[in-house]
Amino acid sequence: MGPGGATADEMKAAFELGALIAREGWVLVTGGRSAGVMDAASRGAKSAGGLTVGILPTKDARDVSEAVDVPILTDMGQARNNINVLSSRAVVACGMGAGTASEVALALKAKKKIILLKVNQESEAFFKSLGGDDVLFAESPREAVDALKKIIGD
Amino acid sequence: MGPGGATADEMKAAFELGALIAREGWVLVTGGRSAGVMDAASRGAKSAGGLTVGILPTKDARDVSEAVDVPILTDMGQARNNINVLSSRAVVACGMGAGTASEVALALKAKKKIILLKVNQESEAFFKSLGGDDVLFAESPREAVDALKKIIGD
Amino acid sequence: MGPGGATADEMKAAFELGALIAREGWVLVTGGRSAGVMDAASRGAKSAGGLTVGILPTKDARDVSEAVDVPILTDMGQARNNINVLSSRAVVACGMGAGTASEVALALKAKKKIILLKVNQESEAFFKSLGGDDVLFAESPREAVDALKKIIGD
Amino acid sequence: MGPGGATADEMKAAFELGALIAREGWVLVTGGRSAGVMDAASRGAKSAGGLTVGILPTKDARDVSEAVDVPILTDMGQARNNINVLSSRAVVACGMGAGTASEVALALKAKKKIILLKVNQESEAFFKSLGGDDVLFAESPREAVDALKKIIGD
Repeated sequence: MGPGGATADEMKAAFELGALIAREGWVLVTGGRSAGVMDAASRGAKSAGGLTVGILPTKDARDVSEAVDVPILTDMGQARNNINVLSSRAVVACGMGAGTASEVALALKAKKKIILLKVNQESEAFFKSLGGDDVLFAESPREAVDALKKIIGD
Repeated sequence: MGPGGATADEMKAAFELGALIAREGWVLVTGGRSAGVMDAASRGAKSAGGLTVGILPTKDARDVSEAVDVPILTDMGQARNNINVLSSRAVVACGMGAGTASEVALALKAKKKIILLKVNQESEAFFKSLGGDDVLFAESPREAVDALKKIIGD
Repeated sequence: MGPGGATADEMKAAFELGALIAREGWVLVTGGRSAGVMDAASRGAKSAGGLTVGILPTKDARDVSEAVDVPILTDMGQARNNINVLSSRAVVACGMGAGTASEVALALKAKKKIILLKVNQESEAFFKSLGGDDVLFAESPREAVDALKKIIGD
Repeated sequence: MGPGGATADEMKAAFELGALIAREGWVLVTGGRSAGVMDAASRGAKSAGGLTVGILPTKDARDVSEAVDVPILTDMGQARNNINVLSSRAVVACGMGAGTASEVALALKAKKKIILLKVNQESEAFFKSLGGDDVLFAESPREAVDALKKIIGD
């Protein structure tokens, strides 16, 4: 999960993260739009031969990232964020924005583990105060995937 | 789409339909539960090597058909029926119940083509009066897939 | 519940129905848009001093009927139809279209009682075959409200 | 908006806030459950003769606060949080938890103004970094309502 309007650094990390997730044989779930972190992570996963699912806010297939294999068209705007997190074994947030913050909060509400990557200090402090041990931090996509392995292995 | 409580005849048709859909190289989308037409169609698709997506009413993975590759957990009950139809290129209803009727109606509202298979006369007459040329009828899974080919080829 | 594009006869019945519902002291719930049966029923309820709730498909207040006191903005398109029926003690369908058909079907799925008013023979036959004793028929708004009294008195 | 599991201090502030909102002649919208801030704010509003709307995660009327006049039953779990914020002119968060955090984030995504009351420093710093001028702070229910007046008067 991550912002539709992302920095070059976030995009690079998201691409690498998608590729590493695909190499583990896992299915990648994103918000599915052809923008920002969603698109970069999906392209990364496809570059490594993975399967990509995109859960979109619209009913319109025009918005879908070309790197999404299975588009789910919800037509329910940001309420779809809850479906993204419920359908995921664990959530990695790469970068932070209002939509991403809602996904991290909804994931904590659903008792999912969260990994924060490329977020500012305020985000770290807030989500730590909110989620305690359910919130993990990663310095790199590699570290995020190592944390995912432990979670999914549980 | 079809009832969770289905007859043996509906289950057989759904299995065959799933297999034929997979043989066309299409992704099968169902309501995802381990019950009735959803489960039978998914098992059929897997028997032919297909990819299966299940869009579930719950947030709980226990309900998921073993033949679903990609479970989408919505936790939104029957409101998820709208996501099923929006995410589908066309809809085949195999058998009829209240949930299936809502999906056919939502599909017509979304201007999707519907194919009715194994439904009673009242269903045929009603949906024809509601949807006109968007509603097609099939006598068998084979006929349903032939109709899908024309729709998806459009 | 009823079509956004309604006939003059359906509009007249919806207005009268809204007024009668308000006179019983009940809250009227509709789809909330400034169109068709939703708007007419809400105007009828306000003419009799009632309270009106509208559950809208959009996030945009522009679409709201002026006769709706409490607009609920869902931004979830036709999936909001399920909220309409779950939030209602019983459902009266005045006229029939694809959206209304989905509401009647979802209401049956939720084990609510349905009253059909101003619908064609195909609709009567279909919903009777689908819902049995949960489906009632009314010849007039007055008859619909008499049926509601029995249901709500239960 | 606020946690279902709230402190005595948060409950007291929520009750007072509900009463002040009702005295302005505004409709109070909450998550509707008979717990925590939702219940306290609704009781406060009723004590001052106001109208209360509750948008619930369940389809079950048993969960509803007795102080809610208009219960909206969504059966969509935490995805209903988006409906709460879209249906509100502005959002006051009283206390903080994962559900409340998702509502504040969704409100910022929807370009609504937020007022934070009784939240910790981490919450203040995070939402300020996320929402800038759309995030306001209040020391008391009175201050929150004064801020709402300016927003709604705009």
